[in-house]
Amino acid sequence: MTSIEPTGLSLEQKASLLSGRDFWHTEAIEVAGIPSILLSDGPHGLRRQDNAADNLGVHDSVSATCFPPSVAVGSSWDPEVAARVGAAIGREARAAGVSVVLGPGVNIKRSPLCGRNFEYYSEDPLLSGALAVAYVRAMQAEGAGASVKHFAANNQETDRMRVSVEVDERTLHEIYLPAFERVVTEAHPATVMCSYNRVNGVYASQNRRLLTDVLRDEWGFDGLVVSDWGAVNDRVPALTAGLDLEMPGTGGSGDAEIVAAVRSGELDEAVVDRSVRRVLALAGRALPPSGDVDPDEQHRVAKEVAAGCAVLLKNDRDTLPLTTRSAVAVIGEFAANPRFQGGGSSHVNPTRVDTALDAIRELGESVTYASGLADNAVEVAREADVAVVFAGLSERDESEGFDRDTIGLPAAQVELIKAVAAASTRTVVVLSHGGVVSLEGWHDDVDSILDGWLLGQAGGRALADLLFGVTNPSGHLAESIPLRLQDNPSYLNFPGESGHVRYGEGVMVGYRYYETAEVAVRYPFGHGLSYTTFETAGLTVTATGDDSATVAVTVTNTGTRAGKHVVQVYVATNAAPVRTPARELRAFAKISLEPGETRRVELTLDRRSFAWYDVELSRWVVSPGDYTVQIGRSAAHIVAEALVTLAGDVIIPVLSIDSTVEEWFGHPIVGPELGELLAGQSDRAESSADWMRMVASMPMRQFTKLMAYRGVSLPTDALPRLIELSKG
Amino acid sequence: MTSIEPTGLSLEQKASLLSGRDFWHTEAIEVAGIPSILLSDGPHGLRRQDNAADNLGVHDSVSATCFPPSVAVGSSWDPEVAARVGAAIGREARAAGVSVVLGPGVNIKRSPLCGRNFEYYSEDPLLSGALAVAYVRAMQAEGAGASVKHFAANNQETDRMRVSVEVDERTLHEIYLPAFERVVTEAHPATVMCSYNRVNGVYASQNRRLLTDVLRDEWGFDGLVVSDWGAVNDRVPALTAGLDLEMPGTGGSGDAEIVAAVRSGELDEAVVDRSVRRVLALAGRALPPSGDVDPDEQHRVAKEVAAGCAVLLKNDRDTLPLTTRSAVAVIGEFAANPRFQGGGSSHVNPTRVDTALDAIRELGESVTYASGLADNAVEVAREADVAVVFAGLSERDESEGFDRDTIGLPAAQVELIKAVAAASTRTVVVLSHGGVVSLEGWHDDVDSILDGWLLGQAGGRALADLLFGVTNPSGHLAESIPLRLQDNPSYLNFPGESGHVRYGEGVMVGYRYYETAEVAVRYPFGHGLSYTTFETAGLTVTATGDDSATVAVTVTNTGTRAGKHVVQVYVATNAAPVRTPARELRAFAKISLEPGETRRVELTLDRRSFAWYDVELSRWVVSPGDYTVQIGRSAAHIVAEALVTLAGDVIIPVLSIDSTVEEWFGHPIVGPELGELLAGQSDRAESSADWMRMVASMPMRQFTKLMAYRGVSLPTDALPRLIELSKG
Repeated sequence: MTSIEPTGLSLEQKASLLSGRDFWHTEAIEVAGIPSILLSDGPHGLRRQDNAADNLGVHDSVSATCFPPSVAVGSSWDPEVAARVGAAIGREARAAGVSVVLGPGVNIKRSPLCGRNFEYYSEDPLLSGALAVAYVRAMQAEGAGASVKHFAANNQETDRMRVSVEVDERTLHEIYLPAFERVVTEAHPATVMCSYNRVNGVYASQNRRLLTDVLRDEWGFDGLVVSDWGAVNDRVPALTAGLDLEMPGTGGSGDAEIVAAVRSGELDEAVVDRSVRRVLALAGRALPPSGDVDPDEQHRVAKEVAAGCAVLLKNDRDTLPLTTRSAVAVIGEFAANPRFQGGGSSHVNPTRVDTALDAIRELGESVTYASGLADNAVEVAREADVAVVFAGLSERDESEGFDRDTIGLPAAQVELIKAVAAASTRTVVVLSHGGVVSLEGWHDDVDSILDGWLLGQAGGRALADLLFGVTNPSGHLAESIPLRLQDNPSYLNFPGESGHVRYGEGVMVGYRYYETAEVAVRYPFGHGLSYTTFETAGLTVTATGDDSATVAVTVTNTGTRAGKHVVQVYVATNAAPVRTPARELRAFAKISLEPGETRRVELTLDRRSFAWYDVELSRWVVSPGDYTVQIGRSAAHIVAEALVTLAGDVIIPVLSIDSTVEEWFGHPIVGPELGELLAGQSDRAESSADWMRMVASMPMRQFTKLMAYRGVSLPTDALPRLIELSKG
Repeated sequence: MTSIEPTGLSLEQKASLLSGRDFWHTEAIEVAGIPSILLSDGPHGLRRQDNAADNLGVHDSVSATCFPPSVAVGSSWDPEVAARVGAAIGREARAAGVSVVLGPGVNIKRSPLCGRNFEYYSEDPLLSGALAVAYVRAMQAEGAGASVKHFAANNQETDRMRVSVEVDERTLHEIYLPAFERVVTEAHPATVMCSYNRVNGVYASQNRRLLTDVLRDEWGFDGLVVSDWGAVNDRVPALTAGLDLEMPGTGGSGDAEIVAAVRSGELDEAVVDRSVRRVLALAGRALPPSGDVDPDEQHRVAKEVAAGCAVLLKNDRDTLPLTTRSAVAVIGEFAANPRFQGGGSSHVNPTRVDTALDAIRELGESVTYASGLADNAVEVAREADVAVVFAGLSERDESEGFDRDTIGLPAAQVELIKAVAAASTRTVVVLSHGGVVSLEGWHDDVDSILDGWLLGQAGGRALADLLFGVTNPSGHLAESIPLRLQDNPSYLNFPGESGHVRYGEGVMVGYRYYETAEVAVRYPFGHGLSYTTFETAGLTVTATGDDSATVAVTVTNTGTRAGKHVVQVYVATNAAPVRTPARELRAFAKISLEPGETRRVELTLDRRSFAWYDVELSRWVVSPGDYTVQIGRSAAHIVAEALVTLAGDVIIPVLSIDSTVEEWFGHPIVGPELGELLAGQSDRAESSADWMRMVASMPMRQFTKLMAYRGVSLPTDALPRLIELSKG
């Protein structure tokens, strides 16, 4: 990595480095030895365009391996899966001369309707962050830079380039920023991509609070901030806020604005130099194309990771795994023409595509196929031992660029599933889709449901392996499957109106809401079945200081097959003075166990596992008190729990005239003294519990006035003195 | 009414008029002929204090008739009931020399937990406003001034003196302001009382947007704005914002701040004069004490209105009305010691109190009584034909000053109800409470439920009359009774934290939420049974212009008793570009019908009935389109509906570079021309439906840049010219 200083460059040259040369390249200044670098869409495969350029996935790109999109990687609950995907794409990027891969996306799935949910990991920030860290580290270890996106609070497609996300600071810090924070602080991505939307009225591309105060000052990010393609609205304020590189190029118009602003004195040239230095650092770490990529090997990786992502939602009567000798009726267009990735900027031109039908024919001895209802599906189902229906959403049903307005499967597919289920002995449904789909209307009619989400180009073979038990399913839901769309906590406010979207549910996103408000779901966050069984025992939780703990639990594979189990650790508490979710995922680990094998798993619960974001102090706080550490099979199914009491943070509040009676009397230093000053002055009414309950929330300012009417007064210097005393 | 000008008064004298002389009186300047006037708490009876003064209802007040609190008047759905209460209190006020009665409260019941819900009418702004208009008109016709309170968005007691209500403008205008608006514009109250809380960060007492822009400039209010008792935090900014009179007096400290601010030039003396003129106008319209009040007559009014308020929620097996010959077991402490009003500033010292037990003994031939479980309640229930259990909340369970944290009845009462129901042949439950209570856990065990809410000092007799059919129940729910507290849309955010409360549900308050999100409730808004039956037929809806309509419907009393029926008119539409509730109450009328009588009822749906508040245009808009006018037995039970199509408002949007592709191409004037300019330049991909769906939400600014990469460009002057063209 070479470091290049901007000295010797003219202002115009420097400005030119701060926007693209074209759609995908940065500007080069050859006389100064500054190379152009190439950025390409990710994050589940390269979308490198040599000719027609666009950021919407409409035009062709050079072929590349299509790995499982993030929605599937999220369901793996396995950083190793994320790392293998990141490394594999990194190798292809390095070989293709791509310096920066535009991914991963770590936005939180706020609503199941978001058209781009397939590009994101989860509704949970911890899971999202942990997977993204693994992905970025592995990718960058191969020599390609990552671009963590879309920073920040980009949770819908509707009006995405203008909408103002109205979100409070606690919700931002606890839900929408932590995955970014973790990637930035732990994996040091080369770039962060700002999002299109506004956050509390300010475009993300011009949001100094996000791009500088939070990203650089709080988290110490020292990489480059690149705009989402076309996200810059006003170049100079964007630069000042911390947006280094505008993409794509604007034919020089943005550069000219920068130059003019410096010349007029509006913009300090040091701001330009700072961003230029970051562009030069990025260019300096760019490596020449190198390495051989074996498409077969890449495809094999794609298949292996895919197998770790699919979620077995339901498996009644041990319908799965299929036996080779069963007569299997494969039904549905997706079996032959698989849906395996999302639409839009991440759309990869795959090197090859496996179909489930081919793979099933290889594994099963008796396989028939019907593409749909018109094609005698019911008949083949009736004649088989088991019918496997491939259903889901097509690329037309969901994509980057627009949000869905329903979570239902297309009516024709529901009809097909029900018709097949009515005719067949046993029915399995295999789902392919990017956003959550409702299982209602047919769930109870079928025996098994294997949810593949989108599994990449080798997904068909991975699904076949899972169906026949060649691989044991180990995916778990990274997002809740609700009973009804309107049960989702963002339902009332998604996707907003009149240019604004209110995050009215606050921190109660996904399972945090369902568990807190006790709203039933079809399948909860964290749910996932296996062909073997696991037992959890011997939970111990030990405080390791005032604000952290270790958790240990023993897991045994009690079944007859090797399998993987996810230890999910949640924390539940009422210790904080703010409303906290019923429980929150605070640690997890995916382990492999042979039949009969037992392992003791130890996990760390760090300070953040117990902290809430205090908007008054603008910092994280661990409240003293009791914390229940829970081991869950899912967010809704707790199998063990243990209490740990933490000393937490000692915060002695500073009182003011606007502090309430309750705060004054409850103050550890001031309270007793105030009580003494008033003792004996109040009559019976003023000292009764009823009276105290009525005045508890009254600020001292009003309380003293009211007491004066009752003939009760404090020495004139008492309050200022006590306020000073409260400062410690 | 005399008008007194502030000329001739010194600055100090004028300032002195802008705060109280003491707790309940304004300042007098006798040499200038300016009298002091007396204000007293309302709104369901006078709370005039001669000695110890407080605004929390802790100390005694002079005895007065206690009428049904607003929670009950709300359930009457009867402006005549509200008017009779207003007039009766007005007469007592006039006789007692009270110039201003501090009521009515028209805040919306956002959460069932709000401790002061008993002082408010409804979760619906139309119902609240209509009742308050009748109350204020009738009271002021008697010569007493009203004080509409608490302005605005004062929907909780927790931290009520500081909490900042975070609410968007559409929600303010559609939910929290309309009841105030209607009272101000239709009933011209003498005063409006500002609330304690902050609204979007600014204290209501210092909120120029509310106190001046909305209240005076938009609504034309020309009365006086008085602070809630102790609501002024900073006197000079409050005065500037539009707060005329600070109450109670502050011993001259606020006056001194005003004088100093004028002297320093910080405050224009004209601002002082303006508020002084309003105080003088109020003093000028004050009338001397006059009139005789007959306590018996007032009590009779209190009984009659109470009978129109109670809501018959359930009546299986025709258990009610009771027959005189039935053996009736009366059970529960509230039968003998009734709960009939709320706690806090509205607490009236009643002239007498009727108990239901006495009244039932007068009406029934065989009446036994047990106060509770320990007092052989089950035994007397077993021996009677019907057991009537009086249950509810005590004054300790709910009050001004604090919010509840549950909607459950006390466990002992649930136990009592269930024990009695198990033993008795038939069971009736009579409820007394200010805030909604859950009926779960015992609802299905009993035959009938008569919900009295709080019925004032004559409520006991009114309930007995209703139980025996002397009066036919005609109340309807003014608020939804949910199945669970957590089903309420404010559940996640009530009562807020860290000094803020987010109105995350927006306009989806009460039944607007339950009906929109299809969340089942125990009893919906508008529900109420009768001892007779009504049928509705012949609905017609006729547009009376671009934005209004008339509704006519024929109602027949098909039963055997005279009774009152409430025609509830809801409007449902998808015409607006914003999210609107499934239906909204837009008109209602309560009519009396003899058995067999038929009446044609005609109601007007004015412009506001179809309008939504456009935050971008800062005004009400009626969107062109279809509106379904629905007649409901409740918000959940529609019995007839008819469609009306309205021309609505013609709004041709002004385009900008930030308008989206969809807005540009959809523009009635510009769209076709833009299409022509681009025709032929785009290749196949750019004109496909998929492409258009992807770019629909892209602002023109970004779209032109992206198109330039595709070699498609507009003449340089095209966009500015088309923008001009869009201005019409």
